[in-house]
Amino acid sequence: MLIPAAVDLYYGNKDWRVFAFSALFMGGLAMAVALATHGRPPQVTTRFGFLLVNLLWLTMAIAGAVPFLASSLDMNLADAVFESVSGITTTGSTVINGLDRAPPGLLLWRSLLNFMGGLGVIALGLFLLPFLNIGGVSYFKIESSDIEDRPFERFHTFAISMIGIYTGLVLVCAIAYAAAGMNGFDSVNHAMSTLATGGMSTHDTSFARYADRPAILWISTLFMFIGGLPFSIMILFVVRGRTDALRDPQIRVFAGYCLAFTLLVAVYLRVDKDMPFFYALTHSAFNFMSIITTTGYASDDYTLWGPFAVACLFVATFLGGCSGSTTGGIKAYRFLVLFELMANGLRRLIYPNTVLPVRYGDRTIDADMQRGVVLFIAAFFVLWAITIILLAATGLDLITAMTGGLTALTNVGPGMGEIIGPVGNFSTLPDTAKWILSAAMLLGRLEILAVLVIFTPTFWGR
Amino acid sequence: MLIPAAVDLYYGNKDWRVFAFSALFMGGLAMAVALATHGRPPQVTTRFGFLLVNLLWLTMAIAGAVPFLASSLDMNLADAVFESVSGITTTGSTVINGLDRAPPGLLLWRSLLNFMGGLGVIALGLFLLPFLNIGGVSYFKIESSDIEDRPFERFHTFAISMIGIYTGLVLVCAIAYAAAGMNGFDSVNHAMSTLATGGMSTHDTSFARYADRPAILWISTLFMFIGGLPFSIMILFVVRGRTDALRDPQIRVFAGYCLAFTLLVAVYLRVDKDMPFFYALTHSAFNFMSIITTTGYASDDYTLWGPFAVACLFVATFLGGCSGSTTGGIKAYRFLVLFELMANGLRRLIYPNTVLPVRYGDRTIDADMQRGVVLFIAAFFVLWAITIILLAATGLDLITAMTGGLTALTNVGPGMGEIIGPVGNFSTLPDTAKWILSAAMLLGRLEILAVLVIFTPTFWGR
Repeated sequence: MLIPAAVDLYYGNKDWRVFAFSALFMGGLAMAVALATHGRPPQVTTRFGFLLVNLLWLTMAIAGAVPFLASSLDMNLADAVFESVSGITTTGSTVINGLDRAPPGLLLWRSLLNFMGGLGVIALGLFLLPFLNIGGVSYFKIESSDIEDRPFERFHTFAISMIGIYTGLVLVCAIAYAAAGMNGFDSVNHAMSTLATGGMSTHDTSFARYADRPAILWISTLFMFIGGLPFSIMILFVVRGRTDALRDPQIRVFAGYCLAFTLLVAVYLRVDKDMPFFYALTHSAFNFMSIITTTGYASDDYTLWGPFAVACLFVATFLGGCSGSTTGGIKAYRFLVLFELMANGLRRLIYPNTVLPVRYGDRTIDADMQRGVVLFIAAFFVLWAITIILLAATGLDLITAMTGGLTALTNVGPGMGEIIGPVGNFSTLPDTAKWILSAAMLLGRLEILAVLVIFTPTFWGR
Repeated sequence: MLIPAAVDLYYGNKDWRVFAFSALFMGGLAMAVALATHGRPPQVTTRFGFLLVNLLWLTMAIAGAVPFLASSLDMNLADAVFESVSGITTTGSTVINGLDRAPPGLLLWRSLLNFMGGLGVIALGLFLLPFLNIGGVSYFKIESSDIEDRPFERFHTFAISMIGIYTGLVLVCAIAYAAAGMNGFDSVNHAMSTLATGGMSTHDTSFARYADRPAILWISTLFMFIGGLPFSIMILFVVRGRTDALRDPQIRVFAGYCLAFTLLVAVYLRVDKDMPFFYALTHSAFNFMSIITTTGYASDDYTLWGPFAVACLFVATFLGGCSGSTTGGIKAYRFLVLFELMANGLRRLIYPNTVLPVRYGDRTIDADMQRGVVLFIAAFFVLWAITIILLAATGLDLITAMTGGLTALTNVGPGMGEIIGPVGNFSTLPDTAKWILSAAMLLGRLEILAVLVIFTPTFWGR
């Protein structure tokens, strides 16, 4: 909060007081909590882990909302919490109209929430979720066995590497944006929300502002893709020089569907909408990468690209990047496991008595991981259905309720339709809908199960 | 085909020639095939079973299309096949405008396709699918152990009971409709498409014609519900008087969600739309029962009931009735297994080393059945995504592509939006879309996996 305070002070904006006040207030609160809970830390159990994760994100959401509530923008509690949750969950949906005229400190705050949210998610995926056996990530516990053998000895190296690589990539991205002609302030802000696959922009029109600057769009496409890669593997690659890590099959699947959708729709735009091919390819690549990596930038009103493109973008909203990345959604490795399970199941229909291993690359996936993947996907669709009904109960039309619930659960950002589409925003939604969507974003960000589990009687039993 | 021929002759419609000709043509063809393949029947293997099921439905689809193609209505090949597939899969979508002026024989033919399709599906669920281990139905193999122990000894009794109960119910339903004021011809036709949960109507306006006849709507609601019950259990109840069979947990789940949605939306219509409560209850019950049992009648343009009702009806499109019924969709027992798996999975997150059985009522569900359920649901959503993209490629808007693909895969009938909503029909869709939807209806009807399996290399290998 002191960074945006400094920036607002530098630009001579009176909102610096808001951040200074928020920093003092939250700092004091944190200090009070720290003093009140002084003493030996509680024993770390699975229950404690789940509670910690939930409370951590809830605390970040509340802390993040304070500056919005106190700012010169007229935001009520529902707005402030929505914007903060959208930031820390790296969703990137916004309720703010007139970003171009907003105080620079506040814009930076939104980007910082994306940045910190992204870092938080990587840490979650690397250090915490594997030990909680969430949604099939246990495989990556085995993969990064360096961590598991002596978790706390290696923890330091890994944490430093992670922060170093993440921050380094943001810097490189910012320099690249600036070199391609973006102004300094926008470069830094967009670099943070690009690597975090968050999607917060400093302009109401998002990347449509750069629609005729292919260099900027391609830089963004590249860094969004990098944001979609598994960080554990990037660490192994950068720190240990292990290139074999890059052969992780989920990377092939992720790159595969990005490429397939991009080419398919680029050709369609060339043929059906008569766009020049390079222009079509640039915008197809940018927007599909943005949706698939759950970033949520838009370089164009793609809802006008015709039904085929719209349907492809709708389906792309489910996909997501790799495990241990900053992306949301169902994610490439789950699709890989799912297709293996399906192929296996179909084979077993013909040979019911053969036992066939379910494979992930050259490994075998155990029953626990299979269950985890299936559990996540089932919970995802059940929650989506509930969200649709709840949102519709607040008066939203079917397309807005359907794509709004989806984009929140997958942490993508924009939906479809006239209200929350790529050129719209969430400002006109009723407050109740904003609360529902905030909850959905948090659920999606914590891989759903980590939240659901604390609502079971078992969690609180004995 | 001789029945509609007789009816057309009775009503003095010249289309009787169409049916007489079709009957002769198909009869001759069938005779030729029978003679050409005369001899010892081939050995019944799993592969043969799958091939048989697929070819059976394909043959019915083609045979059913002949009268449409030859009729006085101006239908091309895509139209005729769509209408026939919609009939035999008990979907009930139509491409015919002006049903009220159509030849009576043709209307009867559509109802008969529903009737035969329903019978076929019950037979499939009772006798064939359990032995092919499709989608979790293997549980019911255990349930109806009378069949499994000595399959061919008991087969005769069961087949006779099944046809008897089904036809008996259709007769009772027809009499009830007539007693409530429907004319004779409509009563017989609607009774057939009600019990088959098919939804073919003799009027363009479907049951909106009877919007002010609550008796008719409630009779229909009751018989649609009966059509959604498992026939194996009805046979056990009727033939053996075994009332314990009625305690099958899937019946409770099915009745539970029918009741929940009906009451929820009835109250909403009373409060928000100011409808008289009994009127609201009648129409809510009728339309939810119609969508949940995948019948597809409509008593009103429910897309005008407001977003909450629309979202509920959209979600209801996934549900379906019980296993071994004439309904499509995901079906109650799969939801039951899914929720058990989810509850179990959440418990295991806290106690990773405990092995907990997955329960269905007072039984334990084995790994094969769990896999079957999961496999079906995964295949369902993957196919839905593919269907959406393919339909959108033919130029359909997102809502039409999304709900059209869904309503075909679940064999419901109407979709949402202006084209294929409850007051619309499928006539204006491009031919390619009609072919895609025909394929989706067949896939949905054969529980998806029975079709997919014949496209695997394993099926054709060795």
